[in-house]
Amino acid sequence: MQLAALRHRPESEDCFLYTPDELRLRLHTAKADVQAVTVLYGDPYVTAPNPTTGEPEFAYQEAAMIKTGTGQTSDYWTISLTAPYHRLQYQFLVTGQDGNTVLLGDRGLRADSAANRRADLFRVPYFHAIDTVQTPAWVKETVWYQIFPERFANGDKTNDPKGTKPWRPADHPGREDYYGGDLQGVLDHLADLQALGVNGLYFCPVFTAMSNHKYDTIDYFNIDPAFGDKALFADLVNQAHRRGMRVMLDAVFNHMGSRSMQWQDVLKFGPQSRFASWFHINRFPAAPFAAPEQGGVPQYDTFAFEPHMPKLDTSNPAVQDYLLEVATYWIKQFDIDAWRLDVANEVDHHFWKRFNQATKALKPDFFVLGEVWHSSQPWLNGDEFDGVMNYAFTEQIEAHFLTGKLSAPELTAALTDQLMLYRDQTDQAMLNMLDSHDTARLLTVAGGDENLALQALAFTFLQTGMPCLYYGTEMGMAGENDPDCRRPMDWAQLKGPIWQRVQALVTFRRAQAATLGTGTTVLSVTAAGLLKVTRIGAHTVTAYFNTTKQPVALTASPVLAQGYADQQLAPTGFAVMVQ
Amino acid sequence: MQLAALRHRPESEDCFLYTPDELRLRLHTAKADVQAVTVLYGDPYVTAPNPTTGEPEFAYQEAAMIKTGTGQTSDYWTISLTAPYHRLQYQFLVTGQDGNTVLLGDRGLRADSAANRRADLFRVPYFHAIDTVQTPAWVKETVWYQIFPERFANGDKTNDPKGTKPWRPADHPGREDYYGGDLQGVLDHLADLQALGVNGLYFCPVFTAMSNHKYDTIDYFNIDPAFGDKALFADLVNQAHRRGMRVMLDAVFNHMGSRSMQWQDVLKFGPQSRFASWFHINRFPAAPFAAPEQGGVPQYDTFAFEPHMPKLDTSNPAVQDYLLEVATYWIKQFDIDAWRLDVANEVDHHFWKRFNQATKALKPDFFVLGEVWHSSQPWLNGDEFDGVMNYAFTEQIEAHFLTGKLSAPELTAALTDQLMLYRDQTDQAMLNMLDSHDTARLLTVAGGDENLALQALAFTFLQTGMPCLYYGTEMGMAGENDPDCRRPMDWAQLKGPIWQRVQALVTFRRAQAATLGTGTTVLSVTAAGLLKVTRIGAHTVTAYFNTTKQPVALTASPVLAQGYADQQLAPTGFAVMVQ
Repeated sequence: MQLAALRHRPESEDCFLYTPDELRLRLHTAKADVQAVTVLYGDPYVTAPNPTTGEPEFAYQEAAMIKTGTGQTSDYWTISLTAPYHRLQYQFLVTGQDGNTVLLGDRGLRADSAANRRADLFRVPYFHAIDTVQTPAWVKETVWYQIFPERFANGDKTNDPKGTKPWRPADHPGREDYYGGDLQGVLDHLADLQALGVNGLYFCPVFTAMSNHKYDTIDYFNIDPAFGDKALFADLVNQAHRRGMRVMLDAVFNHMGSRSMQWQDVLKFGPQSRFASWFHINRFPAAPFAAPEQGGVPQYDTFAFEPHMPKLDTSNPAVQDYLLEVATYWIKQFDIDAWRLDVANEVDHHFWKRFNQATKALKPDFFVLGEVWHSSQPWLNGDEFDGVMNYAFTEQIEAHFLTGKLSAPELTAALTDQLMLYRDQTDQAMLNMLDSHDTARLLTVAGGDENLALQALAFTFLQTGMPCLYYGTEMGMAGENDPDCRRPMDWAQLKGPIWQRVQALVTFRRAQAATLGTGTTVLSVTAAGLLKVTRIGAHTVTAYFNTTKQPVALTASPVLAQGYADQQLAPTGFAVMVQ
Repeated sequence: MQLAALRHRPESEDCFLYTPDELRLRLHTAKADVQAVTVLYGDPYVTAPNPTTGEPEFAYQEAAMIKTGTGQTSDYWTISLTAPYHRLQYQFLVTGQDGNTVLLGDRGLRADSAANRRADLFRVPYFHAIDTVQTPAWVKETVWYQIFPERFANGDKTNDPKGTKPWRPADHPGREDYYGGDLQGVLDHLADLQALGVNGLYFCPVFTAMSNHKYDTIDYFNIDPAFGDKALFADLVNQAHRRGMRVMLDAVFNHMGSRSMQWQDVLKFGPQSRFASWFHINRFPAAPFAAPEQGGVPQYDTFAFEPHMPKLDTSNPAVQDYLLEVATYWIKQFDIDAWRLDVANEVDHHFWKRFNQATKALKPDFFVLGEVWHSSQPWLNGDEFDGVMNYAFTEQIEAHFLTGKLSAPELTAALTDQLMLYRDQTDQAMLNMLDSHDTARLLTVAGGDENLALQALAFTFLQTGMPCLYYGTEMGMAGENDPDCRRPMDWAQLKGPIWQRVQALVTFRRAQAATLGTGTTVLSVTAAGLLKVTRIGAHTVTAYFNTTKQPVALTASPVLAQGYADQQLAPTGFAVMVQ
């Protein structure tokens, strides 16, 4: 047995309350190295007389763990336990493929013996409801739709910026171009979005800012005049809520725009500015900015090395209070349902904990989503974010379906490893998007192959986590990396063939939310090379995806399919069954 | 290579800021499986032109990691890094003993290639000073002394409880016995404690309670009348501070005593009691208490199954506010320096976070110590406790030195594994005690062998972490498990031979605090079977311990020794050198 690979971390994604009464455990072992795992568990204070001596000793129960997944190098074993007295201690009895056995407890490995079965167990000292990581129930029934406001629809020509270009979906937008999209445009198309079936609107920034993307905020308390005003935004939220749609705004709290009043004050008054301590300033004068290539450390810390995005010092209580006022203002006054947090990983944890408390105090089922592209355990323990933008997950889907960099078994391993990084309730609150304003578009990555793009999308819609469509996906829009992925919306394709196929996916996901939102997930590859997804919840959803180059025989009665006919699943095809 | 054993967890004890400018990394590999590890690292936004294409790409540096320890199944590799722009991404290039190489990054393992060296690195998004785990500097220079007040000294006969027994150190106290120890007794002996050299006084509970041990609090705002009063306690703190000693009190916040006003009110008024929601009550009436053996779930949750210790519901804001008033009262009014938290693992994390904020707000270098007997990562991330009672560490020392259950290599492996569970600054704030009011006494576990007991003590004093003496150790007192370990202090041994040897240890530890408090630690076993401890800080302290049955040749000029003569280290001997 590979003993160094036996791994379990107490009170983490390996050991967590799924509900205040249900504990879930995971054990990692080396791939194909272990044949069985038994968990020994019981209340630490419940004893029974030793059969020989009569002395009271720890009385434990035994239960077999199930191997529920295989990652790149690990097998994962899981089990759910309950505890009548709200306390538990436990350890693992592991039997290797080599027939050897060993106990894994809180102080490492021991030989199996009666004494060792009672010594140094892992501990869940008390099942505290208040410490249970909870993610909002509604997000598990949500299909998100991401709107880049400047390019979604121009509903009000009176607020178009100077030099606004004609709305040509085939354009390749430049970095500084404007097309006149605005909130009235979104309001005008709410019925279309409802027809598509999405029930969560995720807006890229809408506050007054310098650029077309608005990630360089000037005033967090105003709607950008090119997008509309607060009355219009209030109306938009109300109309969305009336249609059963939640609203998520994008908060850029890592940095400000350099044209903000605060940064302008720093430029003017230097160290005497009352905002000097709002930023990470290394030396004055703060301008002109010396990029690091020109030698040494810049005058102030920024997002990346962007001089127009000075980084906020969120350890300063004045900055914290200001940003929390922003965060709560849009909830209290406009009733938004969620914040997406830009460059969230570069902001300190202390601030996010205050942010979490402040927002959830106003609305207990408020949803907090961080932008983090890498593994995110430090933010996902229940007191910062509910979920993150799940690039680390969806890029693996892309790497198999679209670019062929991963084989089917490599994909299932990679996705399993990703799911095992977080508690189940957290995996359910991750935002699974195949593209965004920061990436090339799905169809472009798919080389223009609509079937391939829709197959990858269908696969994503069946995974644990909230699916999210980037505006225009349903219109079959293409686009290379930013800024090309931000073309004006192609409304001519509304309710066309691609739109209908995407609508069918959205409809299916929402109809099966009780299975796809919270059900367990098993990923595998069939002997014929089909990717198989099994989700077990209210129903059992089974799906097969042909990512080989040949048709594969399959006997099925799909409720949703592509490329399935005559009991054959074509390449780029999929078939989804519900039981 | 055992690939499943390659392990690194971002933002954890494997990746932490030791200071706001110094990042420390650790990598786990299977024991004796890897020959070299190189870390590739750099600012994620710093690029250099690709030599071939000229395209900008991530520009990284390389540094060799050092193998600094070996645990039961793992080797540990470590390195310190800095970052000019306060950001870092990194991955590990691992070379196995088999000559194979592999990259370990944020999404698992990859073959080494130029492209993979730039893909999916681990990330420290920003070096946030506010998120750096900090433990108080003074604890690293502290030798603690634990006082069980009822048995330390009787300084005031007027407050002796009814039935107080004569002060006979050879007695075997019963569970309900009283001997009359009190705070005046401590005050009377402060000079003796100062002569011993200890500079931290850790008091078992002193508040009004039902029992001799006072773990069943009746009134958290009063000194138990059998111990004295607030004026006396204030005087004691002042006198201790004047002598350079810190004061730590014991807070029992998991449960109350059943004679407390609050629980009595529950018994009287049942569900109508305004304190009914202060406890975890399963059903009324709350008495008589049905132990679980008599069938089913007790009427209310308790510590263990002790009916006179009803568990507090610390998720109730009223309970939180009450306990925080207690916690801050003794700091504000009496200037105590630290809280030791009883049964801390069974209280919820939300409460401890509030507790940490409330106490540190009053005194930034306040010290918070939890009673946790098992691995404690969830409490030791900078926002709950600074350290815990390190039974998980010191029981391993006992298992080698005193009971022979672990061999010398097993001991160094076990201690190394324990140190690797926490950040270095946390290891330095752990309370290392070989015995306490909850265990048999050191000398008794050592079978009455004074040399053996002192050898184990000397070894403990040289480890990372704060040493703590249980009252009476310096008098050579014996005692089996609680209540026998709580005998009246044997003052006749004051300044006797054992006392002098303990004093020498305390003096050495404090004189070498700049090395022993914060220095790095290397544990090994020599070819001749001596345990070797190397600590590297302001100086280098080297020590050898003979735990074999034979004398071992050793050429040394020790500054502190036992059983060392004629270049021979006797069994139970040790020799400590300073360079």
